[in-house]
Amino acid sequence: MAFMDKNFMLHTPVARHLFEDYAKDLPIIDYHCHLDPSQIAQDVRFSNLTELWLYGDHYKWRAMRSCGVDEKYITGDASDYDKFLAYCRIMPLLIGNPLYHWSHLELRRFFGCDLILNEKNAPAIWEHTAKVLQGDISARSLIERSGVELLCTTDDPADSLEYHRQIAASGFKTRVLPAFRPDKGLNLQKADFVPYIQKLGKANGVEIKTLEDLLRAYRVAMDRFAGNGCVLADHGMDDGVVFERYDAYHASLVFEAALSGHKPNEVEAAVYKTYLMCFFGEEYVARKWAMQIHFGVLRNPNRKMFERLGPDSGFDTIHGQNTIHALAQLLGELEEKGALPKTILYSINPSDNAAVEALCGSFCRGDGSGMPTVLQGSAWWFNDHDEGMRAQIRGAASLSALGCSLGMLTDSRSFLSYPRHEYYRRILCDEIGRLVENGDYPNDEEALAELVRRICYRNAKEYLFGETFYETDK
Amino acid sequence: MAFMDKNFMLHTPVARHLFEDYAKDLPIIDYHCHLDPSQIAQDVRFSNLTELWLYGDHYKWRAMRSCGVDEKYITGDASDYDKFLAYCRIMPLLIGNPLYHWSHLELRRFFGCDLILNEKNAPAIWEHTAKVLQGDISARSLIERSGVELLCTTDDPADSLEYHRQIAASGFKTRVLPAFRPDKGLNLQKADFVPYIQKLGKANGVEIKTLEDLLRAYRVAMDRFAGNGCVLADHGMDDGVVFERYDAYHASLVFEAALSGHKPNEVEAAVYKTYLMCFFGEEYVARKWAMQIHFGVLRNPNRKMFERLGPDSGFDTIHGQNTIHALAQLLGELEEKGALPKTILYSINPSDNAAVEALCGSFCRGDGSGMPTVLQGSAWWFNDHDEGMRAQIRGAASLSALGCSLGMLTDSRSFLSYPRHEYYRRILCDEIGRLVENGDYPNDEEALAELVRRICYRNAKEYLFGETFYETDK
Amino acid sequence: MAFMDKNFMLHTPVARHLFEDYAKDLPIIDYHCHLDPSQIAQDVRFSNLTELWLYGDHYKWRAMRSCGVDEKYITGDASDYDKFLAYCRIMPLLIGNPLYHWSHLELRRFFGCDLILNEKNAPAIWEHTAKVLQGDISARSLIERSGVELLCTTDDPADSLEYHRQIAASGFKTRVLPAFRPDKGLNLQKADFVPYIQKLGKANGVEIKTLEDLLRAYRVAMDRFAGNGCVLADHGMDDGVVFERYDAYHASLVFEAALSGHKPNEVEAAVYKTYLMCFFGEEYVARKWAMQIHFGVLRNPNRKMFERLGPDSGFDTIHGQNTIHALAQLLGELEEKGALPKTILYSINPSDNAAVEALCGSFCRGDGSGMPTVLQGSAWWFNDHDEGMRAQIRGAASLSALGCSLGMLTDSRSFLSYPRHEYYRRILCDEIGRLVENGDYPNDEEALAELVRRICYRNAKEYLFGETFYETDK
Repeated sequence: MAFMDKNFMLHTPVARHLFEDYAKDLPIIDYHCHLDPSQIAQDVRFSNLTELWLYGDHYKWRAMRSCGVDEKYITGDASDYDKFLAYCRIMPLLIGNPLYHWSHLELRRFFGCDLILNEKNAPAIWEHTAKVLQGDISARSLIERSGVELLCTTDDPADSLEYHRQIAASGFKTRVLPAFRPDKGLNLQKADFVPYIQKLGKANGVEIKTLEDLLRAYRVAMDRFAGNGCVLADHGMDDGVVFERYDAYHASLVFEAALSGHKPNEVEAAVYKTYLMCFFGEEYVARKWAMQIHFGVLRNPNRKMFERLGPDSGFDTIHGQNTIHALAQLLGELEEKGALPKTILYSINPSDNAAVEALCGSFCRGDGSGMPTVLQGSAWWFNDHDEGMRAQIRGAASLSALGCSLGMLTDSRSFLSYPRHEYYRRILCDEIGRLVENGDYPNDEEALAELVRRICYRNAKEYLFGETFYETDK
Repeated sequence: MAFMDKNFMLHTPVARHLFEDYAKDLPIIDYHCHLDPSQIAQDVRFSNLTELWLYGDHYKWRAMRSCGVDEKYITGDASDYDKFLAYCRIMPLLIGNPLYHWSHLELRRFFGCDLILNEKNAPAIWEHTAKVLQGDISARSLIERSGVELLCTTDDPADSLEYHRQIAASGFKTRVLPAFRPDKGLNLQKADFVPYIQKLGKANGVEIKTLEDLLRAYRVAMDRFAGNGCVLADHGMDDGVVFERYDAYHASLVFEAALSGHKPNEVEAAVYKTYLMCFFGEEYVARKWAMQIHFGVLRNPNRKMFERLGPDSGFDTIHGQNTIHALAQLLGELEEKGALPKTILYSINPSDNAAVEALCGSFCRGDGSGMPTVLQGSAWWFNDHDEGMRAQIRGAASLSALGCSLGMLTDSRSFLSYPRHEYYRRILCDEIGRLVENGDYPNDEEALAELVRRICYRNAKEYLFGETFYETDK
Repeated sequence: MAFMDKNFMLHTPVARHLFEDYAKDLPIIDYHCHLDPSQIAQDVRFSNLTELWLYGDHYKWRAMRSCGVDEKYITGDASDYDKFLAYCRIMPLLIGNPLYHWSHLELRRFFGCDLILNEKNAPAIWEHTAKVLQGDISARSLIERSGVELLCTTDDPADSLEYHRQIAASGFKTRVLPAFRPDKGLNLQKADFVPYIQKLGKANGVEIKTLEDLLRAYRVAMDRFAGNGCVLADHGMDDGVVFERYDAYHASLVFEAALSGHKPNEVEAAVYKTYLMCFFGEEYVARKWAMQIHFGVLRNPNRKMFERLGPDSGFDTIHGQNTIHALAQLLGELEEKGALPKTILYSINPSDNAAVEALCGSFCRGDGSGMPTVLQGSAWWFNDHDEGMRAQIRGAASLSALGCSLGMLTDSRSFLSYPRHEYYRRILCDEIGRLVENGDYPNDEEALAELVRRICYRNAKEYLFGETFYETDK
């Protein structure tokens, strides 16, 4: 096959048909991303490709370091063009890496540029994209032309959400909703915990001196978030999930000690976190929100580079430790208390895939909703490549019901990253096509179309928003 | 390829030839299942498909919950037809799930019905199968027409085995043997331990007051089991395998304390379990039995549903914790004491596959038997799907000798589940065919036929029963 | 495809072209093996195939035990021919096992014998190979005709390296360099620690009474090794990696206590090991050596066979325990101290693959070297089969830069094992070819040729030896 032509990743006639006639044009529900709402509100523009590609993308920084590129061209003071050139130079070495595909897809879909990324073509690509960037390319136009119906940013409970209100007031066709991410208030072992709690209190009009104050502040924040359309929380449990026997009294002791500067030990932190997770679970259930739990990342193992470049610079990694049992205990506790909301689980470690997929099934209620209560999210971070996505799809098919899965999300800071949905949809259609061509599933047009529509679009919409949210539907 | 036609899963001419001409008609040795011997003794009949499919199959219940079906249609009080209809409705969502294939295979092989399971076809399938069920469909006829030469049920040492004797006396052509599963006497942390020990004593004519009494009762039970043809034990080590330094004195203390109501801590329980495993190992060696060890299941993480529906209702999951090291210590201890019988290992977690396969090799004796001492069993429970079976087959090939592996078992409570052997055999022939077509193995008719016959049939027979057991052989 | 013909493992035209025209004839840099330098110095000859194949190859012993061969024919007193025959007999059962391919490749490449290994052909193969062995087959001729430009043996710091000097003086065209493996001085829990330290001191002219003495002896040894061309160290961390807070004072206490016969506990041992790893890291950085870390093996779980046959007899296995976090801490500590050399990581457990690959990226410096600082080594021991190599290649591609990876090494004790490089190269070309044929990568002759040359040859050479080492280059 020609390089990344229209049949890219589509190895069977059925796959091509499903992608071309059903998947390709479905709107995008990007329910988890890290786009900056201020940039959407301001509809920022970009002066060159380096700004879009290399200013904040730690995936690319990491790949460049893996190729021994000088840090000067990664996060240093080299010119934008020289950084771009350095990236082009390593591209041929990235055979089989998702960056190779994503970068080419982005060039093609947004810039109409079919050139192959390498040193030789770098000048022509730079010039071509510079011209296009002078046209109508902006934060919003990139989102709109990607067919994004709705996106959820990731927001701190201390955030004012002013940009979300600006966006909503602006008539921007894509719904841009906040998602609630209270991690900072859970990580009471971190250095900035006390000032953060003060900030959280101020933002929500509560002076926080006790655990009860904290919960009150969170409730105010959740109300504010809900008022701006939020339906979704996200918990990033670095390292892994913890579970400890808890009660309000001991959680209060730990919290108040932390507020007065005492650094809790691991058990104390776990008591506090378990207590708070139960609180959040109850609140999410009451609000019909869904909860995401991301776990297993080891943050900043390279202290030297952390001191130099700070967090989120491409040095995080997979923790390795297995915390499935604690996760099972947490879900069990929540379910017993009536505090288990719709839940999406993501482990960073592909070795957890089967255990996570199985665990989801253990907490699905026979509730008549037509969707699972708990399910495994799409292949995340170190897994969002061809192999990783296929592993997630096959795992869901083998152990749960693929037809009830939630499809893709970008998890990205970049306005160019929407082709990752195309990438996922091609892989999904290819996986389905393979099963049909092999005689593993009937070639039933209606059933196949329904599968594709559900997984790429409708499941996420219905699971997160129920039938009441939108009127238009395909 | 047409949906599930005769070449289902057979992607090369060699694969088709091997399946059609060698694998397909080999008798079945189903050495591990959970069929109810009383139902075989009574040769029960079934009034409708729901009774066969949905009354006790927690695989299907779990899938239905994953699709958000109302519990009423799963374990609730809906009518049998409505339950069947609810199952048909979710079938199209189960693309790639083994239930999709098994259900269609069962319809085809036992009911001669080629219809696709979905809402539209539900009434016709219900009617068709109802008619067939009025014919000669019964527990025994289903077993016989599946070509089952021998099956082993799973039985408690307190069981009287009266149904096994009835079956043996009845002239039923399939040998139905008990397998010895003493788990309840090992789990001294569970609430029903003390009454169980009393029951065990009564059943075996021993009043159990000391550890020595317990061992005596077990020996009586093993003699009874052996008298009914038992050659196989099974140990389900939930969570994982434990190993602790032990001696008879400390094991006695723990046991007697447990009998008087003291709940042991984890170390005490491990001392007792290690001691008992050594006792069982010695006994199995003396009786030439094989021992199965299943491990890594997390039972009943969803306490709420456990309280509502009890155990084995589709809520168990994969524990996640790695206990390979303890398993290695246990096998090392057994081997050193001359107490390591033929052993089959099964981990529920596919991430353990390589470690388990490698561990087997470390305990294979150069004993001239022509079979390994310790080997990995077939893909189990959460792994008995296309991907999981292929992973197990490839792991055995890469790290051990595939030609010495044991083939499939159903591990099932259902009289309809024998097509799982067909499923496995198709996959096995496909894997072998792929290697031959790729030039990885010679297209040597004799060698290939021998591989297929060994793995699908003869290895299990010879490993478990030696050459003396049966006279007929293919 | 015909069995193992010239297109063996090459499933696409691109794959065939890349292998035939680029990969096949590249020289071999075998930077990690266990060949015995004395045998190279003496240019030993072999009287029959059993001597070459079965005298020391615990892979084959293990396979034979997995097939239930009598130990007599494995490590016992059977005749060489009977041992060979026993191995031939089990070959047909080893479908899909790398031994099947390696053994046939070795027969073809070194003996010009195309016969298939089985009982029937055993006599003819024995005779044929016996004749060939009377010709010019010797340790050196096997290495030379395999196109080995350079190989690194594995050597203890107490070794005199006299055979390396003899080889260097002999004019043998292949460079044979020592690699520095100080494991015995780190394992202070082992029984032979004290006599080993004495031996180490004597060999390096230092009387070792304190930790400082030990370091001095190691520095002398490193200088000697460097003087013989060493550029590479290797640390085998059985079980897993440990990390503990340490300082010179406590490490000294532990070391001196061990010297006087005190067996340290686990924490003490970890303090000592962490301290020493930091020492070695500094020294390696100063000398521009690369460091290999192999981890996750469980040694000798079968005590009974260990007592009978000793270590390295085919009974080691995969530990299972996850020690990624400790490894991350160790690398973080080394990097912070400026003591992290070029590092190659190998886990024996394929479930660690993604975590190891991700961890490498977290310690790659933007250093302008054109190669990663830390990278994952090739599929090791229980992973060096078709599936395992593909998994390692795909992991490197998905999470790092495949174009910067290091290719294959034999890790072998056998002079016949060089076709493992051919095996790897075929798989690599097949993986690259697959991506090109699927349209995942452009069919760009120059870029593809460069990838193949880098991965199979140049990367190892440049990473380990820099540009100054050799003049000839392809």
